[in-house]
Amino acid sequence: MSFEVLKSDGFARRGRLTLTHGVVETPTFMPVGTLGAVKTVAPWELEAMGAQIILGNTYHLYLRPGLEVLRHFGGLHRFMKWDKPLLTDSGGFQVFSLDARRKVTDEGVLFRSHLNGDAIHLTPELSAQIQQAIGSDIAMLFDECVALPSPNHVLEQAVKRSLEWGKRFLDVPRLSGQKIFGIVQGGTSPDLRAQSLEGTLALDIDGLAIGGLSVGEPHSEMIAVLEGLAPKLPTHLPHYLMGVGTPRDLLESIRCGIDMFDCVLPTRNGRNGGFFTHDGLINIRNQKHQLDDAPIDPQCDCPCCSRYSRGYLRHLFLTKEILGCRLATLHNLHYYHRFMSAIRQSLENGSFPVLYGEWAPRLRAAYPDRGKSQEE
Amino acid sequence: MSFEVLKSDGFARRGRLTLTHGVVETPTFMPVGTLGAVKTVAPWELEAMGAQIILGNTYHLYLRPGLEVLRHFGGLHRFMKWDKPLLTDSGGFQVFSLDARRKVTDEGVLFRSHLNGDAIHLTPELSAQIQQAIGSDIAMLFDECVALPSPNHVLEQAVKRSLEWGKRFLDVPRLSGQKIFGIVQGGTSPDLRAQSLEGTLALDIDGLAIGGLSVGEPHSEMIAVLEGLAPKLPTHLPHYLMGVGTPRDLLESIRCGIDMFDCVLPTRNGRNGGFFTHDGLINIRNQKHQLDDAPIDPQCDCPCCSRYSRGYLRHLFLTKEILGCRLATLHNLHYYHRFMSAIRQSLENGSFPVLYGEWAPRLRAAYPDRGKSQEE
Repeated sequence: MSFEVLKSDGFARRGRLTLTHGVVETPTFMPVGTLGAVKTVAPWELEAMGAQIILGNTYHLYLRPGLEVLRHFGGLHRFMKWDKPLLTDSGGFQVFSLDARRKVTDEGVLFRSHLNGDAIHLTPELSAQIQQAIGSDIAMLFDECVALPSPNHVLEQAVKRSLEWGKRFLDVPRLSGQKIFGIVQGGTSPDLRAQSLEGTLALDIDGLAIGGLSVGEPHSEMIAVLEGLAPKLPTHLPHYLMGVGTPRDLLESIRCGIDMFDCVLPTRNGRNGGFFTHDGLINIRNQKHQLDDAPIDPQCDCPCCSRYSRGYLRHLFLTKEILGCRLATLHNLHYYHRFMSAIRQSLENGSFPVLYGEWAPRLRAAYPDRGKSQEE
Repeated sequence: MSFEVLKSDGFARRGRLTLTHGVVETPTFMPVGTLGAVKTVAPWELEAMGAQIILGNTYHLYLRPGLEVLRHFGGLHRFMKWDKPLLTDSGGFQVFSLDARRKVTDEGVLFRSHLNGDAIHLTPELSAQIQQAIGSDIAMLFDECVALPSPNHVLEQAVKRSLEWGKRFLDVPRLSGQKIFGIVQGGTSPDLRAQSLEGTLALDIDGLAIGGLSVGEPHSEMIAVLEGLAPKLPTHLPHYLMGVGTPRDLLESIRCGIDMFDCVLPTRNGRNGGFFTHDGLINIRNQKHQLDDAPIDPQCDCPCCSRYSRGYLRHLFLTKEILGCRLATLHNLHYYHRFMSAIRQSLENGSFPVLYGEWAPRLRAAYPDRGKSQEE
């Protein structure tokens, strides 16, 4: 059994996922390492903050360094010197994020490379092959992720295509030990979501992802979709909400039974001088921090908060010192991991409702809008 | 006694400099932290590699964060959380490096800020006040650094002005515990160098710097100046060669009695994908490294060489991942520190001539030209 639920509280679960490169305690947040590096962060820093699993990106790694290099080095783990679990998205998200550069047909997706305009024909079969060359612990089925709002027939076609592509993907002989997750599409339509869920569960998958959210819709609509799905999600599979989100998003989604998250928000905001706290995002460039001796968060034990004043961090960002991006990214990823760790603990000892009651209103005030998920 | 020579071999010395924030074993290399951060590197990483003392820059720190902030935070040590020794250059080097943006008179230097065009009138008195606000362990006298080649009357004027400015600088009451180093100018002229040395030694200084080198002249001319000065340098003072240089420059200069160096080469080259080795600078972007499993230097125990292949490092630079700049900077600074440590050891155990005999020809082949020293 590669996934077990240790405890649950309503739909919320405290689980454990066993993968080739290690055990992942859930709920968990997965830092994004698009091109084989979590931006600005070294692997030993990820380990020190408690990161259990990180992401790589099929489309981007196919372009650079490419299959020849990935195969020569024996996969991404050995190439980037990360020996814990890795998950790869399938390229399906790029159907959304690179929508000006691609054409979708039933066969697959024709991209014009964002680097040099070269034609890249990504198919379910190729996506499977790339993810095998990467050697990820978890590969994602190749899906069609569409923006919201979209007309019903577009959403419907995406559901249908994602299922067809999923079948073709699974016809490629598996890499030993690699888990494969299916992806539920269907936008904000309860019917299409139910239809997509049913079709996806008929496939031979090891986990279930919810895709096509955090793609333009407001927070409330996203949560409505999750609340609709929650009672229907099979409890024996891990549930992964793709590309989400703010601390508020995470807390509400865990309430709806989500076990795994990935998002560029902590890393991207970090590079732009945005620091996550329970009371919202601090923009360190603000003049008011110039003479501020206080750390970002006196409760935080990260390498940034345990040493540095807001005044110094502001100086680093105003002078474009890379150390500033590093410290902010470290803090933000620490914040996300500490956040998830506290939730796991509350689920273990039965205090999740208390934690939720305290944090939900605070995070609602702190994060009124959901950050959009994009390319890192 | 703040400086003692423990051993010597010809003009080369193994020394020890005692400063407010700690002891510096010489010969030593000082990483450059222009704006209160060694680019891409965290203080704990500097400590781990054996950095004993780093630089800050008077002109740049005066512009950002400025005196109000530096004073509020109680100086640069506390602002940037570096509790080992700090040396500040005086702004004199910017007379050279920002030469299109300044006008020099006997009174001082009128800069047009490189950030917004604001007028900045840097005088010896202001340079002293800024360095006191920074609270550096070693302050440098404010000098006029000119490019090479320059006409004799320009060099002569720079020598005269630097001495006048030095006297005015020293008329500012001292900050308790702060050491002050004088700077010998005079270009490649033996007479002017001798005249500048004599005048500088008449001042109340704690150390002697050689300025106005590595500013356009070939390696051989720089070494000729140092060879000319070597017998005349007072042995009781530390000797600091400003803004130099390649590993070859360092070895030859130590032979001429130099104890301290600073240079942006390891950090700047690191950010551009250049890795220092005894056999020259490796440009990691080169196609030939694509499938290379080897580390930069199998003998090196830095966090980069002990983990990563050239193939992965190349990938990081081609994809502009900040982790690449970090790893290259770490390696280069490790290389410089290991280099200095080996030289210190050879001076201690009497094997410096052997080391020199082995390394000098290798480094001559590896670094035929000297890298220019510039703004970081």
